[in-house]
Parts: sequence; C-alpha cells; structure tokens
Amino acid sequence: MSQTLEAFREYLKKLNRYNRINSLLSWDMYTATPRLGYQSMADALTWFSSEAFALSTSDELQKLLEALAAPEEYEQLDEAMQFTVRTMKRELDESRRIPRDFYEAFVTARSASMQAWQEAKKASDFSLFAPHLENMIEMTKEQCGYTHPGKEVYDVLLNQYEEGMDSAAIDRIFEELKEGLIPLVQKILAAPQPDSEKFRGYYDPDDQKKVQDLLLDYMGFNPDAGVTSQSEHPFTMAFSRNDVRLTNNYDPENPISAIFSAIHEGGHGIFGQNVNPALEGTPADDCRYMGIHESQSRFYENILGRNRNFWIPIYGRVQELLPGLQHISLDEFYREINHVQNSLIRTDADEVTYGLHIIIRYEIEQAIFRDHVPVKELPALWNRKMKDYLQITPPDDARGILQDMHWSDGSFGYFPSYLLGNIYDGMFLEAITRDLGSLDSLLAQGEVKTVTRWLGSHIHWYGGLRLPAEVIRQVCGRELSAAPLLNYFKEKYTELYHL
Amino acid sequence: MSQTLEAFREYLKKLNRYNRINSLLSWDMYTATPRLGYQSMADALTWFSSEAFALSTSDELQKLLEALAAPEEYEQLDEAMQFTVRTMKRELDESRRIPRDFYEAFVTARSASMQAWQEAKKASDFSLFAPHLENMIEMTKEQCGYTHPGKEVYDVLLNQYEEGMDSAAIDRIFEELKEGLIPLVQKILAAPQPDSEKFRGYYDPDDQKKVQDLLLDYMGFNPDAGVTSQSEHPFTMAFSRNDVRLTNNYDPENPISAIFSAIHEGGHGIFGQNVNPALEGTPADDCRYMGIHESQSRFYENILGRNRNFWIPIYGRVQELLPGLQHISLDEFYREINHVQNSLIRTDADEVTYGLHIIIRYEIEQAIFRDHVPVKELPALWNRKMKDYLQITPPDDARGILQDMHWSDGSFGYFPSYLLGNIYDGMFLEAITRDLGSLDSLLAQGEVKTVTRWLGSHIHWYGGLRLPAEVIRQVCGRELSAAPLLNYFKEKYTELYHL
Repeated sequence: MSQTLEAFREYLKKLNRYNRINSLLSWDMYTATPRLGYQSMADALTWFSSEAFALSTSDELQKLLEALAAPEEYEQLDEAMQFTVRTMKRELDESRRIPRDFYEAFVTARSASMQAWQEAKKASDFSLFAPHLENMIEMTKEQCGYTHPGKEVYDVLLNQYEEGMDSAAIDRIFEELKEGLIPLVQKILAAPQPDSEKFRGYYDPDDQKKVQDLLLDYMGFNPDAGVTSQSEHPFTMAFSRNDVRLTNNYDPENPISAIFSAIHEGGHGIFGQNVNPALEGTPADDCRYMGIHESQSRFYENILGRNRNFWIPIYGRVQELLPGLQHISLDEFYREINHVQNSLIRTDADEVTYGLHIIIRYEIEQAIFRDHVPVKELPALWNRKMKDYLQITPPDDARGILQDMHWSDGSFGYFPSYLLGNIYDGMFLEAITRDLGSLDSLLAQGEVKTVTRWLGSHIHWYGGLRLPAEVIRQVCGRELSAAPLLNYFKEKYTELYHL
Repeated sequence: MSQTLEAFREYLKKLNRYNRINSLLSWDMYTATPRLGYQSMADALTWFSSEAFALSTSDELQKLLEALAAPEEYEQLDEAMQFTVRTMKRELDESRRIPRDFYEAFVTARSASMQAWQEAKKASDFSLFAPHLENMIEMTKEQCGYTHPGKEVYDVLLNQYEEGMDSAAIDRIFEELKEGLIPLVQKILAAPQPDSEKFRGYYDPDDQKKVQDLLLDYMGFNPDAGVTSQSEHPFTMAFSRNDVRLTNNYDPENPISAIFSAIHEGGHGIFGQNVNPALEGTPADDCRYMGIHESQSRFYENILGRNRNFWIPIYGRVQELLPGLQHISLDEFYREINHVQNSLIRTDADEVTYGLHIIIRYEIEQAIFRDHVPVKELPALWNRKMKDYLQITPPDDARGILQDMHWSDGSFGYFPSYLLGNIYDGMFLEAITRDLGSLDSLLAQGEVKTVTRWLGSHIHWYGGLRLPAEVIRQVCGRELSAAPLLNYFKEKYTELYHL
C-alpha cells in the first residue's frame, strides 16, 4: 500500500469517527433526548458537524485525493477505493467552489425557512412561507451555479438524490405512468369500497412493538446487527452493516400504520445489513441513491407486505399479539391494507394513488425551475392538479402545498426518488419472478427470506457502487420503464375491486 | 470577566462537549448498540476518550488554571468557578504526576484484569484472577505513590469516592453499626419468615415498565428532563440537570427487583435533575461523592420505598398494571419487600444484611492495604467473615469473593460509599422528621413529592459543591453516626418480625 493511500485510509477513519458521532447525536435526539435536554444535544451536533465539515473540506484531504486521483496511483486502487476517491474528490471540488459567505448564509436561511414553514403549516397560511420559499429557490439556483456552472438547475438537483437521472428520463416514465394511473384510479374510486369501521379500537403500542419484532424476524432482519426504537416519524439510520437502526411510531387507534412502517423501515434496514463488508467505511457502504434505497423499503412494504399471501403464514400470530384484530378475517385485513382512497396527504396514500401525489410535486418543481412560475401561483397550481389527478380539492394549504417539509430546507428534486423506487419495484418484480417463479407461491410458503436472499445478492451487496441505471440494467436486463409497475397495479386491483 | 476566565470558560465548553460524546457513546453501548456493532462503538469511545484526556491534561489548560488560581484572579471568581478551578487544578496536578508509561501500562493491565475476573467468575476459579488482583493492588499502590506521595494508600483510595473521608472515621461508624447489626440479623433470621412462593408467576416486562413510569411520576422525576431505557444492569447517567437517564432490567419472573431498581435509579435521577442550574458545565453539576449520591437513591429505595405507607396510595394501580400481583395483599407485598435473608450475593441483599456485606468488603480492603495479607489468603478470609457475620458459607468463589467486579479494575475504596449512603440516610431520616413531622403520615397521604422538595432544597441543589461531611453538618446539625440507621432498623424490624 502506498504511503499516500495509507495516510488517506487513516484520514477516512478519523472522518468516519466524526460522522459516526454526528449520526449518534441525531439518533439520540430523535429517539431518546428529553425535551429539556434537546438544545444541548443540538449545540453539540452543530459543533461536531462543523468539525466534520472542516475535516471533509480540508487542504490536507484535497492533497491526498489529488495524489490518489493521479492515474499511476488510481489504477493501483481496488474498485471500492476508486469509487471512494472519485466520489469524495468530486464532492470536495463542488463544495470548495461554494463561497464560504454564501454557504453560511444558506445554512441560516434554511433554518429560518424551516421554522417559517412550521408556523405557516400550523396557521395554514401560505403567505407566511412564500418569501422563504422564494429565497430557498433563489439560493438553490445560486448554489447550483457554483457547484455545476452552466448546467440545468433541476437536473443538478435530481442528480443529488438519484445520480445519473435527468428530467428527460423522468418526464418520459412519469408521463407513461400518469396516463395509466389516472383512469385506473378513477375506476377504483367508482367501485364499492371496503368498510374501515371494523378496525376501530385500541391497539396497545407495546403489542404493536411485538408485531414489529415478529415481522422483522419474518423478513430476515438480523437483530444482532440492528436495533429498533421510537420517534415521531419512522426512519432508518445505518452506522454500518453491523449496526442498523429503525424507528417506528405506534398509533393506539390504528395498527396498520405501524405495521407498514415496520415493514418499510425493515426493508431499508435489511439493505443496510447486507452490503458487502469490503465497502465498510467508504461512501459506498450504504446506498447513496434515494430511489434505489426506496425501491427496497417499498418492495417489502408494497410488493411483499400488501400481498395477501405474505400474511397467510403469520396472520394468526399477529391476531394473537393484537387482540383488536381477532374479529377481523385475513380477507378483511387484506382489503383494508389495499384500500385505495383519494386522500389529501401523501404519507397516508395507498400504493396506487401515491404515484399521483409525487407526480404533482414533480410537475410543480418543474414549474418552479424550468417554467419560472411565481411562488404565489403555486398553491392554486397544486389544488388544480389535485382536482385533475385525484378528484379532490384541499380545503386548506396545510393539507395542500404546505403538507411536506421537503421544500422548506431546499430539498428540491427529492420527491421523484420515492416514485422511482416504486417504478424500480415493478421491474424487480418481473426479474424476481423470472428467477424464482411465482412470488405468490413463495409467500404462501412463508419464504420471505428467500426473497431477501435474492435482493441481497442482486442489489444490497453492491451498496452504492453501481449507479441506479446500472442496477436496473444488470438486475433486469432492460431499460427502465413504468409498464411493469402499471401491469402489477392493473392485475392486482382489477381482481381486488372487481373492475 | 477577565480574558483568562473567558478563555477558560471556552475551554471548559469544549471539554464538556467531548465528555458528552463519551457519555453518549457509553449510554448507547449499554442501551442500544447491537451485538455486532459493539466493537466500532468501543473503538470510537477509545478514540474520543483519549481526545478528552489530552484536553483535560494539556499545557494550555494547566496555564489557564494556574492563572486563575493566583489569588488576585481567584478572589474575583464566584463560588462555582472557585470550586471548578480548585478541583480541576488538583486533578490535573495529580494526573500530571503519573508517568505516561505507567499510566498506559495501568490501562492495559486493568483491561486484562477485568477479562481475567470474568473468566475466573465463570469458572469459579480464584487462581485465574489472583495474579491480576495482586497486580491491581501493586499498581494501585504505585499510582497513589505518584499522586499522593507519603499518604496512607487506603485513605487516598477512600477519598477518591468520598472526599474528606478516612479509615479512622469509617472504622468508628462501621464498628458501631456492626455491633448492632450482627445480633439484630441473628434475631431476625431465627424468627418466622414470610412465604415468597405466592410471588411465582409471569410479569410482562412491558407491564413492569408501566409500573416504573407510575413510580417515577409518583416520586417527582421530571420526564421532560429525563428518559428511561433498558440495560443488563440498571444505572443512572446525567448529561445535565435537563437530561438525566435511567435504565432498568425487567426479570419476567420477579417484579420486585425492577420495582426497587426503578425507585433506586429514580432517586439518583431526581438528585441530578434538581442541582442548581448555575453549576451546569462545572465539576459540581453532579454530585461527585458516591456516598452522598447513594444516600439519595437509597433514601427513595429503602426509607421511602420499603415503608408500607409509600404503597397505600398506589398499590391498587400497581396491581392493575401487574395482574400477577392481584392475589397478593398490600401486607403480603410489604412483608416480601422487607424479607431479611442471609443471602450470598450483595446485590440481592435486603437493607439490613446489606451493611454486613459491605463491612466484609471494607475489612478485606483493610487487610490488603493496611495489613498486607497475601492475596491467596483472601478467599478463606471472605468465607470466614460470611460465616461469622451472616451465618452462611459460600459454596464456591463465584458466589463468594469473585461476585463483584470492583476489584478487577482497581476500584478499591468504592464499596464503603454504598454503606455510607445508608448511614447518611439514617441521619437524613432524623432531620426530615424534625422538619416535616412523621414520614409515615406524609407517605400515607401520597406526599412523596413533599419529601422530594425537602431533599431537593437541602441536598440536591448543591450538587457537588459541599463535601460529604459539610452536607451532614449543615443538613443534620451534628456529626455522622450510625445510631440513627440502627434505630430505624431496630424499630422497623422488631415490629415486622415480632421480635
């Protein structure tokens, strides 16, 4: 090993230690820190984050990366180290092009904007948030101008979350999906709906936690390399493949929400646990592409978890753990977990209408960055699209354009990755059926872990080494298309709703 | 504020941030880190600990402390800052007298000794641990020679845990206690014992957790400034008065153990939450004296929690939460939580025999450091004292001299502080009765929080500002004595056992 490589590995270790501390502080703030202790933890996080930022943008690191990027050194590196040098060098170059003054002003503005959004949502008053949103849009454009001069802003943003993706590709597949989804949703909404009333009752959070443990075990989540906790919104955080952390939130009046969060986060978690150990400590040791990561959580949540057969081997045990479900048959449960509704809130949406919620957000982001539509016109645009695609009009902006936090901190371009995850899943479903035969039969036999092994060896093992388009090409053997997802929806819901 | 003071305050902030990270890493390792993730957390802890150690022994800190210790600066400081400068300067001077080579050798030897102890305990083979124990004794002596040249080693050790305490004082009060305790225990053991069989059953850990929440609320633990979790052994850790953390361990076959751990750790926690906020970030912001800290956890656990009247207002709710207790009357419960037995294991002991377990350890530490008794003779000495004081002989060393981990890492002088805590409690019981009237009446009315307020204003508020002897003098108005504790035992158990 060259001296430069050795020095770089040591540097990476130190940087990882600081990043671990920042993750741990965040984890603790979400899951454990009591209300009055929050500020001190936040102060510590600010301080250690700035230490980590200084480490990740130092002259010392730049010199190491430049030395290792030189052809004679680079060719000696293994695949993981080449990826590391390439990725870190690009990120370092980008962030060093951002003027320090601008960077700090953006941090401050972002924090003010997040607070304004919270107040605006609470008051359901878009005008409180509008000037901050304008500011976030302008500063986002300015930042892209520094990091990627001359590039289309919205493509730069999409690339942040799903590298290699651009709006031309997304336009094509979202349009394909939208054309199929709108009439399907209309037909479903016109059909007789299941009765949710039977689910009213009290479901003890401790019992829901026991169901979560059962589900995670059933899916193949390794408890020796993972842990679960509670937080206001469920999330997954991986320190390494040996320490993957999931949270959940248990609503005592609704057992279905936590069940599907458990499966969803469990899917992210299983991904994290099955990455090649050789990638540990590199930027490829967890999947950096939101769409690919979401495809795994959603594969478990939707393709597996919303399949009737997934429940056949375990529904009896779930009923034992949750007495409130004892008078609900497997069929009634199955209908309810696939209840399609034109709801107002994205995070409450079923798997079918979910896509339309995302397409609305994508089209509004296009309106902002490509068509330069003024901010004050966005709420009306939102409501019009809700009406056109989902036949429902938000009664206020809190349940309309103000519902999601993403735009408040400038995370434009993030939303599409959720739907890309679903679209990838249609493709993966085709591929897995090709390799393992009928998923329905596998599930009826309780063979979820067979699916986990397939996902592990085809997708999880590679962490972030392969770009999304490469993953699709190598796993599915063809180009990305929304058709498999649409076919899955049509087949499943035609039967379920007797369309 | 002088420039030096300002620089010192900034330095302290930085040091506190590193100490917070180390506490957080430990907290996480005990409560959350999964088995396979443990090593990486331990590596991070080693690294950040050495960073904190470097910060706390730096030349820069020494210069700041020396400048602030100079009379013209020192006199300008407030009480908390004087304490801080005095304490940190003394500790820095001491640790800088330890040769670096010796320090590192001690760290390594300690870690080997802890491992050897674990193996020896598992195999119940003292000979595996003996050479390490000899080494711990010799290195402890050597370290005391550096930090406190010319001083009696065992007094230096006692001072580490209970500043201002020496073996002359402890000899006197432990002897006083022992003379009263041995005949009392003999009388109790000869009396008819309650029947523990009725408690056999299954007690769901989730239900036990609900009882813990009830108890903490009842005692006045503030959930906005605290949090609870689970770990193998219960403990308390305070990040600040606004973030105090307790753990528990729920045995599904024994509800009493977790109930009393909850009350015990709750007592430590309430102490931490009620320290004067002006002390935050100084070494006085938590009580540094183990005996005083233990006196608070034990006051709640024993003086309050083992009083029949403590349970009158809440026993019905406890039975609702723990159905296994529904056929057990309050009187039966009260008898069982005060069941005096000559058990082998200190941590299982009742409040009466507990003192004898500690006195045995104290006398053996005296044998080691004052009388230079060879290590190989210690197991026999232990067993002889168990026979003499508790009328029981350990069947093996695992349940004898190998049971506690304290000596394996060189924590000699720690044990006495547990019993000092009990002895202080006898004194505090006298003082609180003087100020508030009969504790029995207060408790029967559910007024635990009135007691919490008294302890808060008389003891907790001062954190570590006052030395143990000062606390006793100011709160109790007289010198330390074991008589109040003995009187409490005699009165309570004469009635309970119809002696």
